[in-house]
Amino acid sequence: MSIARYARLLPLASALVLYQAAPATADDGVPLTSAEVLKRSADSDWRLLDPSSLIVMDLPAGRVVIELAPHFAPRHVENIRALAKDGYYDGLAIVRVQDNYVTQWGDPDNGKPIAPERKALPPEFSRRDASLPFNKLVDGDVYAPEAGFSAGFPAARDPATGESWPVHCYGMVGAGRGATADSGSGMELYAVIGHAPRHLDRNITLVGRVVQGMEQLTALPRGTGSLGFYEKPEQRVPITRVRLATEIPEAERPRLEALRTDTPTFAAYVEARRNRRDDWFLVPAGRIDVCNVPLPVRQRL
Amino acid sequence: MSIARYARLLPLASALVLYQAAPATADDGVPLTSAEVLKRSADSDWRLLDPSSLIVMDLPAGRVVIELAPHFAPRHVENIRALAKDGYYDGLAIVRVQDNYVTQWGDPDNGKPIAPERKALPPEFSRRDASLPFNKLVDGDVYAPEAGFSAGFPAARDPATGESWPVHCYGMVGAGRGATADSGSGMELYAVIGHAPRHLDRNITLVGRVVQGMEQLTALPRGTGSLGFYEKPEQRVPITRVRLATEIPEAERPRLEALRTDTPTFAAYVEARRNRRDDWFLVPAGRIDVCNVPLPVRQRL
Repeated sequence: MSIARYARLLPLASALVLYQAAPATADDGVPLTSAEVLKRSADSDWRLLDPSSLIVMDLPAGRVVIELAPHFAPRHVENIRALAKDGYYDGLAIVRVQDNYVTQWGDPDNGKPIAPERKALPPEFSRRDASLPFNKLVDGDVYAPEAGFSAGFPAARDPATGESWPVHCYGMVGAGRGATADSGSGMELYAVIGHAPRHLDRNITLVGRVVQGMEQLTALPRGTGSLGFYEKPEQRVPITRVRLATEIPEAERPRLEALRTDTPTFAAYVEARRNRRDDWFLVPAGRIDVCNVPLPVRQRL
Repeated sequence: MSIARYARLLPLASALVLYQAAPATADDGVPLTSAEVLKRSADSDWRLLDPSSLIVMDLPAGRVVIELAPHFAPRHVENIRALAKDGYYDGLAIVRVQDNYVTQWGDPDNGKPIAPERKALPPEFSRRDASLPFNKLVDGDVYAPEAGFSAGFPAARDPATGESWPVHCYGMVGAGRGATADSGSGMELYAVIGHAPRHLDRNITLVGRVVQGMEQLTALPRGTGSLGFYEKPEQRVPITRVRLATEIPEAERPRLEALRTDTPTFAAYVEARRNRRDDWFLVPAGRIDVCNVPLPVRQRL
């Protein structure tokens, strides 16, 4: 008596690449499920995640892989790459897990040496760059004039101002900051672990999203201190090591690929999630929220 | 360098009841924060949770309290009350934790005796009852013509049909079902632990929401089987005992109260969350999603 019988996203381990075009309907005209869309996807529907934008964080219980978003936050991404190369994050800790909100990590004692120029950056909350890709959802959005996807990230846009910005969906990663806009840098990071806190959009710099190992950040005990901070040092989860994937020997690097978000296949995938065709569903929703579209990632074989 | 410095919801332990009216602005005209709105709330802004609609589930690591929603799902609620009184849930287990989706519990072996009439009920996905309370949000909704609150629960409504239904926000509890609409009964329950899976709305019967102990359901290891089911029996979390609060000696019952959702105080609270006035926020969102309004619950002193 499961509550949802639709097929899961292709599990990483069993991903198949089929060399076929990706129609939104089968030959008999029946709409496809999202699993069927993925099964029929072509190689070219997927992009290999660039190792120079992949952060690999090793925790005692497993690995978290984060894809950085240089097109939205170039300076923060550059800073995070440098901090990772310098080993800055090694030995820091997860210090905060606030239920239905965020898991956050950084230097609990502010004791780790860090160059002054790596401590604070101008905000990169949004961008005005007409050349940024944007694939708009037709479903509307409560928070923004337009919502959709930009080069693999959930995003929003205001056509009146030409501004676009990534949005705080589940799994998105941002750079903690203090009271002032320019007090963040990526030396402290958080991941969204609850219902999308969209009120944070354009208030803080999003730098990427978790593409593997999300459960390492979500299944942790919630902190009982203010804002979900762990009250005792021994509750913190130590960070063994954080590396940029390019710093890892090629044979050991994660080789992940993500479904491109600017293709007919992706549009078919979204449509299949908007109107579930799986037998279990009785009333297809007909609409979809930008944060309710899981962005498929799988192992490249 | 916390990512959000706004005051948390009043923690249960330190809740105060102040005998004041609840204006949306302070005397000086400055808009209030949500914490300030709650501080200024009157006794009458809160309702004591009815013990005949409170399910108390004891797990080895702590307690979960669920408020049932008899106005939306009267037959399922009656069935769940009866199952709790009969001790049906005692000794069952949490069998499934699917990341960003649901935690689910029931009888893993289908071995516990259960009366045939308690096994399946007609669906209660939505109701057509013009007398049901509904306080509409002005913010719009991606999934439904109208979203808002109905007697303490997040809900949606279609004025064209007169239909209203509870919605799948974080913490909502539903009755698992199989392939057919009438195959659920409350013998198997799930709680939403991720971004609101609103595509489930009107496809399955919601029966209540978690009002205390949510972290007992969210911080669990994710299941590695299909749909997040635990693959080994020893991974399951045993349910020590489930009781209706009326079956618990009065001195030991949870005495919780929830902010009423049909008052000017609640409207002020929503407005304070729609446009955060806390210093940390630079760009107030101006809009709010129905599932982004945490419904305050506190200990009645």
